[in-house]
Amino acid sequence: MSQTTTSRKARAPVFISAPLAALVEGIYRADTTIGEIRKKGNLGIGTFNDLDGEMVLLDGLVYCLRPQGDAELIGDDVRTPFALATQFEGDTEDRFDVPVAESDFEHAMLDLVPSPNLMYAFRIDGHFNYVRARSVPKQSNYLPLAEIAKLQTVFEYHDIEGTIVGFYTPTFLAGVHLAGLHLHFITADRLKGGHLLAAAPKDITVKLQHAPAIELGLPMTFDFLAMDRTRDMEADLNKVER
Amino acid sequence: MSQTTTSRKARAPVFISAPLAALVEGIYRADTTIGEIRKKGNLGIGTFNDLDGEMVLLDGLVYCLRPQGDAELIGDDVRTPFALATQFEGDTEDRFDVPVAESDFEHAMLDLVPSPNLMYAFRIDGHFNYVRARSVPKQSNYLPLAEIAKLQTVFEYHDIEGTIVGFYTPTFLAGVHLAGLHLHFITADRLKGGHLLAAAPKDITVKLQHAPAIELGLPMTFDFLAMDRTRDMEADLNKVER
Repeated sequence: MSQTTTSRKARAPVFISAPLAALVEGIYRADTTIGEIRKKGNLGIGTFNDLDGEMVLLDGLVYCLRPQGDAELIGDDVRTPFALATQFEGDTEDRFDVPVAESDFEHAMLDLVPSPNLMYAFRIDGHFNYVRARSVPKQSNYLPLAEIAKLQTVFEYHDIEGTIVGFYTPTFLAGVHLAGLHLHFITADRLKGGHLLAAAPKDITVKLQHAPAIELGLPMTFDFLAMDRTRDMEADLNKVER
Repeated sequence: MSQTTTSRKARAPVFISAPLAALVEGIYRADTTIGEIRKKGNLGIGTFNDLDGEMVLLDGLVYCLRPQGDAELIGDDVRTPFALATQFEGDTEDRFDVPVAESDFEHAMLDLVPSPNLMYAFRIDGHFNYVRARSVPKQSNYLPLAEIAKLQTVFEYHDIEGTIVGFYTPTFLAGVHLAGLHLHFITADRLKGGHLLAAAPKDITVKLQHAPAIELGLPMTFDFLAMDRTRDMEADLNKVER
């Protein structure tokens, strides 16, 4: 493995459109548009109103990864209840030119995180021996996120080129975003992908960028303002995001 | 009680200079200056490097409330490990022109919060039958915050004019700031005050302002980057902040 470090510039904050706590409670609609998300950066992840697919923001374009695993370019007027974005260049670049086992992948990525107490954006490009990803069918409001895990579709890809994007989040932000790694996958032809469940890289380049600040939106929708938190967020997220 | 609501304008975010989790672990120094805090707003609370007193930011001026309870104007080059600030005008104004018992004060203030899921800034001006406040002596790094509660000095004021400033924070931000109310008190002559422990108002005006977003700083100091979270934050905060 070889590492390149670029000079540490003043980096953009990570924008989080709403606390993940709202999604966990089943609030699947907000007024934030994809256009607003794209103004916050060129790289990100999230979902769409009514959980209508997994989101990848890559090179400034927003893709929706449908339950069938098909990717589709999304226009600026579509809305999202939850998305993260940052302006990404990369502080460090690490090459893994030997295969990494599926069971070692998360640990290898976490090993690259310089401090557990900042937020980091990831961009991983290359060739994978294996990728497992999922998406969820469109929902109505109020079915808690943990129930939707049962309805997800899982896809497997073998010997595939693609890009993984996402974030590392410190534990003290657990009410705001999933603590640890949260990654989405899209194929190199930008035609398929989903929320990443497992990966076994063959030859990849991993770029990381720290965030000196977080910008968190608090939606002014009635559902959000009236939300009564009743779910065990950590238990629910272990069911649905891992 | 009478309420006045001003038109709901686009409001400033609440700036939080660092997650409270760091203070709980005993990280009492950062590079954020009072000048930077004052650029983020005209109202706020916090502390100073080495916990050298409680902070009140009021009408754009930063006061330090010393262990003896004396207030002092602070210059822009002093540093803080933890502070909140926002540009405050007030969305609503409520008058309490009959006395409120000490045991009813917190509940009366929480009753004014329109949604438990936004962050709100408070400014309370008026006459109090009773106020109890505290400050802490200057510390070295690494004595956890919960241990410092034992060293605090408590002041009592009877029949006093003054101002309370602070914030309501939703539970999903508990790693970032104290959930619920966090208020500091300063007398009308701006000469005394501290972290508010109890209040029995006689005749007060309460202004509230919602925050549509949070801006959280992540300090780039070595202590913060290397922080290994070991404390039970909620238990520690109950010892020290309540």
